[in-house]
Amino acid sequence: MVHPSASASALLHHVRTGRARSRAELVALTGASRNTVSARVDQLIAANLLEEGGRGWSTGGRPPTLLRFNSRAGCVLAVDLGVTSVDVAVTDLSAEVLATVGHPIDIADGPRAVLAEVDRLAQQVLAEAGLTPADVCAIGVGVPGPVEVSTGRPVHPPIMPGWHDHPIPDAFGRYGCPVFADNDVNVMALGEMGVAGSVEDVLVIKVGTGIGCGIIVDGQVYRGAQGSAGDIGHISVPLPPGRSVLCRCGNENCLEAIAGGGALLRDAQAAGLPVTSTRELVQLAAQGDGPTLELVRDAGRTIGTVLASLVNFFNPHRIVMTGGVAQAGAPLLAGIREAVYGRSLPLAARKLEITVSEAPEMSGRLGAALMAIEGYLDEDSVSSASRLPAQAAVGPRPAR
Amino acid sequence: MVHPSASASALLHHVRTGRARSRAELVALTGASRNTVSARVDQLIAANLLEEGGRGWSTGGRPPTLLRFNSRAGCVLAVDLGVTSVDVAVTDLSAEVLATVGHPIDIADGPRAVLAEVDRLAQQVLAEAGLTPADVCAIGVGVPGPVEVSTGRPVHPPIMPGWHDHPIPDAFGRYGCPVFADNDVNVMALGEMGVAGSVEDVLVIKVGTGIGCGIIVDGQVYRGAQGSAGDIGHISVPLPPGRSVLCRCGNENCLEAIAGGGALLRDAQAAGLPVTSTRELVQLAAQGDGPTLELVRDAGRTIGTVLASLVNFFNPHRIVMTGGVAQAGAPLLAGIREAVYGRSLPLAARKLEITVSEAPEMSGRLGAALMAIEGYLDEDSVSSASRLPAQAAVGPRPAR
Repeated sequence: MVHPSASASALLHHVRTGRARSRAELVALTGASRNTVSARVDQLIAANLLEEGGRGWSTGGRPPTLLRFNSRAGCVLAVDLGVTSVDVAVTDLSAEVLATVGHPIDIADGPRAVLAEVDRLAQQVLAEAGLTPADVCAIGVGVPGPVEVSTGRPVHPPIMPGWHDHPIPDAFGRYGCPVFADNDVNVMALGEMGVAGSVEDVLVIKVGTGIGCGIIVDGQVYRGAQGSAGDIGHISVPLPPGRSVLCRCGNENCLEAIAGGGALLRDAQAAGLPVTSTRELVQLAAQGDGPTLELVRDAGRTIGTVLASLVNFFNPHRIVMTGGVAQAGAPLLAGIREAVYGRSLPLAARKLEITVSEAPEMSGRLGAALMAIEGYLDEDSVSSASRLPAQAAVGPRPAR
Repeated sequence: MVHPSASASALLHHVRTGRARSRAELVALTGASRNTVSARVDQLIAANLLEEGGRGWSTGGRPPTLLRFNSRAGCVLAVDLGVTSVDVAVTDLSAEVLATVGHPIDIADGPRAVLAEVDRLAQQVLAEAGLTPADVCAIGVGVPGPVEVSTGRPVHPPIMPGWHDHPIPDAFGRYGCPVFADNDVNVMALGEMGVAGSVEDVLVIKVGTGIGCGIIVDGQVYRGAQGSAGDIGHISVPLPPGRSVLCRCGNENCLEAIAGGGALLRDAQAAGLPVTSTRELVQLAAQGDGPTLELVRDAGRTIGTVLASLVNFFNPHRIVMTGGVAQAGAPLLAGIREAVYGRSLPLAARKLEITVSEAPEMSGRLGAALMAIEGYLDEDSVSSASRLPAQAAVGPRPAR
C-alpha cells in the first residue's frame, strides 16, 4: 500500500483543487520527500494528467516550475437517470460539460430498454464533442433508487420496477472503463459540492416525485451501515386526527406521501385545481398563483417539520433543496424555514443556511461526472493510467 | 507537517491497537521507509511509550524484535460530571482504571465549588494509585451540557446554571498538562467504542434526566457545524390531541419532556405511584413492577418513534442505550424496538442492533480517559513527550 497522503492520486488532488502549484508546494503540503514527490509527479506527467508550464515566484533561488492539471487528459460520461427523464453528458476531467443531451423516458420500461437508450445518447454526445469511446476514462450513473455501490446494482428500488439487482455497469462494456453507480440523491449532493469539493456537513434534499436526502459529512457522501442513509421519504409525519395517507411503501403518513410531488398533484386535483402535472403546479406556484402556492408552502411546512428534527440531530452547515418541486422556490423555502427555525435548537439553527440549488437541473449530471472523475483519479486508476499509452488522452480539443 | 499516516502517533496507534507488532509490520502497513519507521520507533522508545521485548516468528532471516505499547508510561485523569454526581478515575494509557472515586454533587453549585471538589477527588485517586500530579499526562472531562471543544468552555448549558463560558481547563493548572472537555454524551459514545475503537456508524443514546445522543461516524465523534449534533432531547414528538407538555427549553412536546427521567418521575407521581426518585422508579421497572414497567415501556415507545426517523436518515450499524433510565433494561428496549422495527425502512432496520450499554456507569469515565489518551498521544503530544525526561513515566507500578 502506498502512503495515502503522498500517493499519486493525492498529489494530483492537491494540484486539481489549487492547494499546491509546484513540486516544492507538494513537498511542503504532504511532508513526503522531494524524491518521492518528483517521481510521482513525473508519473502523472507521463500519464498526461499533469502538465508543466510557466514559472512561479521565487522566494530565493530558482523559481519553481508550475504544475497544472490537464483536465483534457480524458473525458467521462455522466448519466442522470430519473423516473421520467434521462440526461447524458460528456465532460472533461474538471467536470466541464463538452456536450449534453436528454429527453423523457419511463424508468418502468426496465433496464434493458432504458440503458440501450442511454448508450445511444452517450454515442450522440461523444460524436457531438468530437470524441470516441476510447477517450472515455470512466462513467458515472445516478439512478432514482437504492444502489449497492460496490457492484452498481439497484437494491429493491421502489419506483424502478424490473431494475432490482440489474448490473448497471454491464451496459457499458464497450467503453472498457470503470462504471460508478449510486442513487440520484447522493450523486446530486456531490454535484452541489461542486468541483472544488467541500469540508462542510450538508444535507441535499431532493423533492421530486419522492423525497430523498444526500448526506455530506466533511465533504464526503455518508452512506451508513447498509448504504441507505438519507432515505427520509418514509419518515412518519404527524397528521391531524382522523386524517391518514397510505404510502406506496405500505406504511401510513410517510413524508413523501404527504409532501412529495405526487402528493401535491393529488391534493391539487382533489381541490379542483386545473393542473395535470406536478411540473405545471410548480410553475404556477413559482409565478405566484395563490392556491398552488399555498399547497407548496404547506408541503414546505411538512418537510420543515422533519428537517427541524434532523437539524437538531445532525447540526449541518447548510441545507440545499433540489428536485422538481424545489423549482417552486420561495413558497417552498418559506414553509421549510418557518418550521425549521420555529422548532430547531437556536445553536443549531443560528447560522444554518437553507437555499434552493442554483442549478437543480444540472446537479445530477455534474455529480455523476464528479463521481466518475474521483473514481477514475483514485490511486489504482492513476497507477493504471500511468501505464496507458498516449491515446488515452482526448484527441481533438472540442470547441466550447 | 509530518506525513500523517507514518507520524509517530500513527505508528504508536498501530502498535496500541494490535495492527502491527514490529518495525517490519509498521513498514508494511504504512508504506513508509524502514529508516523513517525506525527513527520514529526509536523516538517512541526514548519517550518510554514503546518497549521492545521478545522475538516474533521469522518468515526467513532474523526473527523480528516485537514492539509493545507501554501503557504505564503515564496516567490520565478521567472526570465524569453529571447533574447530581461526579466520578473521577485515574487510568493508565490503555484506559485501565487504577483507582476511582465518586459521590453525589449538585452541578448547580457552580463551577468553582464543583471543580474544587473534582480536584480534591483527583488528588485522592492519585494517592490511592501511588501516583503524583507529575505523572498525569492529560485530563478528560465530560459535562452534562454543550461544550466548545477547542476551549473547553460550556456554551449556555441548560442544566448547568453558572457554567456558561467557564474555562474548565483552568481548574487543572497544577497538572501542567492538556485538558480535554466535551459533553457527556460524546464522551460516553467514545467509551462505548472502547479502547479498540470502531469503524462503525453508531448512535449512543443517553436517557438520564434529559435525553442526548452521541454520534459516531466511522469510529469518530461527529459534532456538526456548531458542535451541537446529537441534541435530540428537544426534537418535537407528536402527542394525542388536547395533550401538550411544556419543556424547560420553552418549547412544547420535546422528547425529553415526555420520555426523559424527570418526565417519568412526574408521570409516576401523577399516577399516584409511591416513588420518590427516577432511580427508584427504574429499579422497580427492572424488577418487573407492572405500573412502573408500563411507564418505562411507554417512554421507550416515544424514544423509538424519534429513533425510527433517525434510523432511516442515518442508517447506523447499532444503537446503544445508556444513562440512568437505560438501566431499566428490557422494558425500555421493548418499547424502543417496537417503534423502531415497526416504522424504519426494512433495509436500514434489518441488521440494526439495539442494545443497552454493558457498563453504563463506567462509559463516562472510560470515554473521558480515552479522550485524554487520544488527545495526549496525538502528534504534538508525542513529539513533546519524546523531549520529556524519564520522570514522565509512572513510577511505582500500582497494585491491581
